Amino acid sequence: MKPLNIGLIGYGFMGRTHTNGYRQAPRFFDLEYHPVLKAVCARNEEKAKAFAEQQGYESVETDWRKLLERDDIDAVDVCVPNNLHKEISIAAAEAGKMVLCEKPLAMNTAEGIEMCEAVEKAGVRNMVWYNYRRVPAVTLAKQMIDEGRLGKIFHYRANFLQDWTINADVPQGGAATWRLDAEAAGSGVTGDLLAHCIDTALWLNGSIQDVSAVTETFVKERVHSETGEKTPVKIDDACAFHCHFDNGSLGLFESTRYARGHKALYTLEINGEHGSLRWDLHDLHRLEFFDHNDDSIVRGWRSIHVSDGDQPYMANWWVPGLQIGYEHTFVHQVADFLKSLESDQPAAPTFRDALETQRVCDAVLDSAATRSWKDVK
Amino acid sequence: MKPLNIGLIGYGFMGRTHTNGYRQAPRFFDLEYHPVLKAVCARNEEKAKAFAEQQGYESVETDWRKLLERDDIDAVDVCVPNNLHKEISIAAAEAGKMVLCEKPLAMNTAEGIEMCEAVEKAGVRNMVWYNYRRVPAVTLAKQMIDEGRLGKIFHYRANFLQDWTINADVPQGGAATWRLDAEAAGSGVTGDLLAHCIDTALWLNGSIQDVSAVTETFVKERVHSETGEKTPVKIDDACAFHCHFDNGSLGLFESTRYARGHKALYTLEINGEHGSLRWDLHDLHRLEFFDHNDDSIVRGWRSIHVSDGDQPYMANWWVPGLQIGYEHTFVHQVADFLKSLESDQPAAPTFRDALETQRVCDAVLDSAATRSWKDVK
Amino acid sequence: MKPLNIGLIGYGFMGRTHTNGYRQAPRFFDLEYHPVLKAVCARNEEKAKAFAEQQGYESVETDWRKLLERDDIDAVDVCVPNNLHKEISIAAAEAGKMVLCEKPLAMNTAEGIEMCEAVEKAGVRNMVWYNYRRVPAVTLAKQMIDEGRLGKIFHYRANFLQDWTINADVPQGGAATWRLDAEAAGSGVTGDLLAHCIDTALWLNGSIQDVSAVTETFVKERVHSETGEKTPVKIDDACAFHCHFDNGSLGLFESTRYARGHKALYTLEINGEHGSLRWDLHDLHRLEFFDHNDDSIVRGWRSIHVSDGDQPYMANWWVPGLQIGYEHTFVHQVADFLKSLESDQPAAPTFRDALETQRVCDAVLDSAATRSWKDVK
Amino acid sequence: MKPLNIGLIGYGFMGRTHTNGYRQAPRFFDLEYHPVLKAVCARNEEKAKAFAEQQGYESVETDWRKLLERDDIDAVDVCVPNNLHKEISIAAAEAGKMVLCEKPLAMNTAEGIEMCEAVEKAGVRNMVWYNYRRVPAVTLAKQMIDEGRLGKIFHYRANFLQDWTINADVPQGGAATWRLDAEAAGSGVTGDLLAHCIDTALWLNGSIQDVSAVTETFVKERVHSETGEKTPVKIDDACAFHCHFDNGSLGLFESTRYARGHKALYTLEINGEHGSLRWDLHDLHRLEFFDHNDDSIVRGWRSIHVSDGDQPYMANWWVPGLQIGYEHTFVHQVADFLKSLESDQPAAPTFRDALETQRVCDAVLDSAATRSWKDVK
Repeated sequence: MKPLNIGLIGYGFMGRTHTNGYRQAPRFFDLEYHPVLKAVCARNEEKAKAFAEQQGYESVETDWRKLLERDDIDAVDVCVPNNLHKEISIAAAEAGKMVLCEKPLAMNTAEGIEMCEAVEKAGVRNMVWYNYRRVPAVTLAKQMIDEGRLGKIFHYRANFLQDWTINADVPQGGAATWRLDAEAAGSGVTGDLLAHCIDTALWLNGSIQDVSAVTETFVKERVHSETGEKTPVKIDDACAFHCHFDNGSLGLFESTRYARGHKALYTLEINGEHGSLRWDLHDLHRLEFFDHNDDSIVRGWRSIHVSDGDQPYMANWWVPGLQIGYEHTFVHQVADFLKSLESDQPAAPTFRDALETQRVCDAVLDSAATRSWKDVK
Repeated sequence: MKPLNIGLIGYGFMGRTHTNGYRQAPRFFDLEYHPVLKAVCARNEEKAKAFAEQQGYESVETDWRKLLERDDIDAVDVCVPNNLHKEISIAAAEAGKMVLCEKPLAMNTAEGIEMCEAVEKAGVRNMVWYNYRRVPAVTLAKQMIDEGRLGKIFHYRANFLQDWTINADVPQGGAATWRLDAEAAGSGVTGDLLAHCIDTALWLNGSIQDVSAVTETFVKERVHSETGEKTPVKIDDACAFHCHFDNGSLGLFESTRYARGHKALYTLEINGEHGSLRWDLHDLHRLEFFDHNDDSIVRGWRSIHVSDGDQPYMANWWVPGLQIGYEHTFVHQVADFLKSLESDQPAAPTFRDALETQRVCDAVLDSAATRSWKDVK
Repeated sequence: MKPLNIGLIGYGFMGRTHTNGYRQAPRFFDLEYHPVLKAVCARNEEKAKAFAEQQGYESVETDWRKLLERDDIDAVDVCVPNNLHKEISIAAAEAGKMVLCEKPLAMNTAEGIEMCEAVEKAGVRNMVWYNYRRVPAVTLAKQMIDEGRLGKIFHYRANFLQDWTINADVPQGGAATWRLDAEAAGSGVTGDLLAHCIDTALWLNGSIQDVSAVTETFVKERVHSETGEKTPVKIDDACAFHCHFDNGSLGLFESTRYARGHKALYTLEINGEHGSLRWDLHDLHRLEFFDHNDDSIVRGWRSIHVSDGDQPYMANWWVPGLQIGYEHTFVHQVADFLKSLESDQPAAPTFRDALETQRVCDAVLDSAATRSWKDVK
Repeated sequence: MKPLNIGLIGYGFMGRTHTNGYRQAPRFFDLEYHPVLKAVCARNEEKAKAFAEQQGYESVETDWRKLLERDDIDAVDVCVPNNLHKEISIAAAEAGKMVLCEKPLAMNTAEGIEMCEAVEKAGVRNMVWYNYRRVPAVTLAKQMIDEGRLGKIFHYRANFLQDWTINADVPQGGAATWRLDAEAAGSGVTGDLLAHCIDTALWLNGSIQDVSAVTETFVKERVHSETGEKTPVKIDDACAFHCHFDNGSLGLFESTRYARGHKALYTLEINGEHGSLRWDLHDLHRLEFFDHNDDSIVRGWRSIHVSDGDQPYMANWWVPGLQIGYEHTFVHQVADFLKSLESDQPAAPTFRDALETQRVCDAVLDSAATRSWKDVK
């Protein structure tokens, strides 16, 4: 058993999910490396200490540069708002640390390129937390597509629908709502939600050539948490786009925070010559599969309860029929990252993989701004 | 094209469903015999005339004995409360008419035996309107079981849940609510609803050996429509029973009119060695199928949308994906009855078939009354 | 009771659905006017006679101009491929007949304008068979929106997914597959399927301002039924577009015939400030409703089984829980048309209403061809 | 922060679920007491050590009596086959330890009474691991019933369906399959699965008066793991019963391991005057609710995605829409147990609570054996 010392920067929602991943992975997977919760870093020392105590971190830092200087940190986990990803990740790479960065990789493609170059120049391991690849049902979808069960693909569609910003009194900026502040987030639903959909799509269905998008900001002004004043909202509240994939299929994507009744409805569907697949984050343990090869009188969409030992990741959990949840995607990503150290293979998605998602996001925002088709480049 | 002259006795809800079956069957099925709506019979002449005009009957009778005397009537359709089934059916048989009797066959087994003997002695065609056999999804279930897709059967379960009598102000007796009056109905949910479940079960899974039942009457007194007085309720508001089938499987049945939220939830499920089937009247065009022979990683319940041309009855309707409804079960039963005239085969379920359901109902009520297991005999 | 003499031109799938509407409407609705199946017209006399006999038409014509000359025809029902709608409808109007035209109204907006002018100049009643407005669940959605249950609308999305042309051996042209022949159909899924989605959307959510679309033809050549030769396919196999509605909401639409596993999956969803609605043609008797006004701990999407007497159209059918099907939409449209004669009100959608859908379709196809946003005009 | 030293006896499937509960509870709940994984005890030292290492136990014992003698153990967790529950639990109580016993409490009521008397005499805290009470959706159901949202109850039904013993080659006895061996398990599905359904039912709907049951053993002989010989199977493969609750409602319960297609389908439904509730372990984060008080035209079963902060336990996890899974029920039970130490209240279900379930199980088995109704006593 080898320790892997973790330094976490940021203690928000994502800090909790990653930490749980570090804690649980070695209890459920046979791993050579075991994460050690060495330090958590945040500007507010009191809150950082409370977090460290609750979550089991050994120490606290209030300056991330200090954290990078410590010899007892092997890997840095960047869990801060998007506008800080670049600076910290590059510095961590230059300090020779492994870098695990929360998604989206960067504020834009230009930043992302710098980050890729930094980690590659430094030769450090790097990964981005696009966790939904590791939902067992989604991993099973990948396996089925790779096995050729769907044949030639015609359509890919995905959406990510929420409803938490309909109330115009929700502010922008600050710890809880920085996602509404363009300065901190870079974009709205495009980088926050569609980036997830795009990452999965690129993984399951290959590259995207060009996009045509529309965005909308329904609430034009919101109070900014820092100033207390009404300020124009510059993020996209909603975004939809269609696109061409390299394999000739059409893509259709949509995201919004104004779809009343949907809390976190990430759904995807892929239609191929021989079969189709559907998945929905609200019931993440199920995968729906239509197999055209079934006898015609008994064909129908199958609701696969992905909880059996021969389905991805599930042998490590409970028994058939007993579902796991959202947090397990991070446990799986940690386990896969740790195994990648054993095998000396990259752990996907790397910064380079995530840069491709960034390119699509940039093309989408550019297309919406210019009301025209844009190539992904 | 040969006419088959219909004389309908009763013009209630079931009178409408049967009439629609007569009218529609020849428009959608290739049939040698075409029903002719010759006469409708009911004591209230005014209402009978209104019904005849709306539904297209050529004439009206107010005395069913007169109807039986008419030479221009080939088939008599008995659509009256249960306590009149026996007398009219036997008289119709003796008059040489074909007899199509609404379900349940009779008030009890003893009456049913007399009725069977009458139609068999007279040598007249006879059928009972257990219409749910002709839901395409249910017919497909029968086909799949007969093809051996399920293998040895372990379990059969069915229920029929409603909620329309929870309000204690619903009266008993009279045209709309005779189903709550034991004098007219014989029993409550057992004869009204469970009889449907039992008919389907016997058809799909074979004979029942013995039963153990419980019944309950939640509202003990209701105003009787005829007297205006509160009178004890003698029907069963709810009934549940378990049983053994001849094939070694266990059965579990339940019906009630006190299951808030269920309008007419007739569901059935059958579990076999190799597969299982589920069906639900609230979405009657779907059949769910689990096939254990599927690859283990992609096994799941299939939701079969029974609307393709190679599925039972559906070639006669629209195109794949476009559903039919409740009323079509009667169209199918009429079509099958008319085809049975061409082929000179019995049209199931005959009186004799329906008598078996009556025997089970009697055993169920007897078991509940005596709190003991009862053989079906 | 007043007769309304119908002359039907065309005897295909739609001829059957309309005819059933004429036959059933007066049996289930109280109507002053009763349709009389006076004549069916088609070039193939033998087939027309067979259709007339099966469906109950009194006579047959083989030249539609002859039909228009007959004094005993009140209303002409245009059930022929799209490229014949204009000529026949205008001639019928000029002959003083009511005109009921199958959707889409025309091959394009220009044709549609001529048709509108013709019926309006002639002062004849006119209607287009956008039947899905009369699914009870969809009509209930309209009622709920009009009651203000959803509040301000943010999103409208709809798709219509099929899978019947994936096989490259399906020909184009001819009686069964003229929908793949641009000469006969004008467009592919846009006019055939999206037109339905657009009609419903305009009805539920108001006018569309501008659109940005993409189309695709997956199978580039198909044998033409008439020539037996492989010919380029000129229709759109798939089409997706986003748009702005006048009310400020965003729209997202998609249709394809290459979505394996979907037979006729027309779904729609509308998200408002206070609530959302969803509907799906594959289970057309259900409407899903999310009401944000519910207590927060018990909020959830309701699955409304639209089969109660106080829900649109359902008092005319059976009892709660018993579903109706696809064909009933035409019965409802006939009933509403006949009632419009009594009230002397237009029966929606009129030619003028349907022209609006045509404008959107034209803008969609134009946008796809030019890869640019197009105003609806 | 106070430590609570845990000694776990048994390291099977349940050992893992409980251990995870101990590990996770203090990370997600604010608790005064923190469990310390002090020792795990099992006869096989090598396996016990491997378990201890993987799961983080500090030490290992191979004799449970030794464990009870240790002063550094506060609470003993009894995770062994049913036939050992009594002896160990009583000894643990006599040693002054808190006792947390896996369900069912005992082999039968007589044993259960001894156990209750022992813990009560010793005055030690005690709890039984009926974990499904702590599924947030089930806890919410309890809350809603207690709030009176359902009104007078008419029906309660539950089933627990599995399919893992259909294959006749599955052996009985041994570590993996002791549940098929009557010597170790006491009964089959009754104690293993129905006990869960009964515990929840008693909690939600009150006491059961009498029962009428049927059991079946489909595979009559199985190889015994210890002897390698075919031996008669003495457990119940399937069990169904109906019953009367004290509140006047009817109950219907069923369990089997021969329902092909169901891995762990524990469902429950409760029908009251004003509303109904349904829940299903296969999608455990959802609760279905029908509220008769809704406007009649928009009534329908709501699918409540129980993942919001104001729903039971969920404020301690992630954000709305992100589901938790099976293992969390044990985390909740641990958290509630630890809080009960702070408040000095009993943590339900206690041994005494679980004894009531045992009484019902005994009555069920007795009823099935004697083919007669049995009072619960």
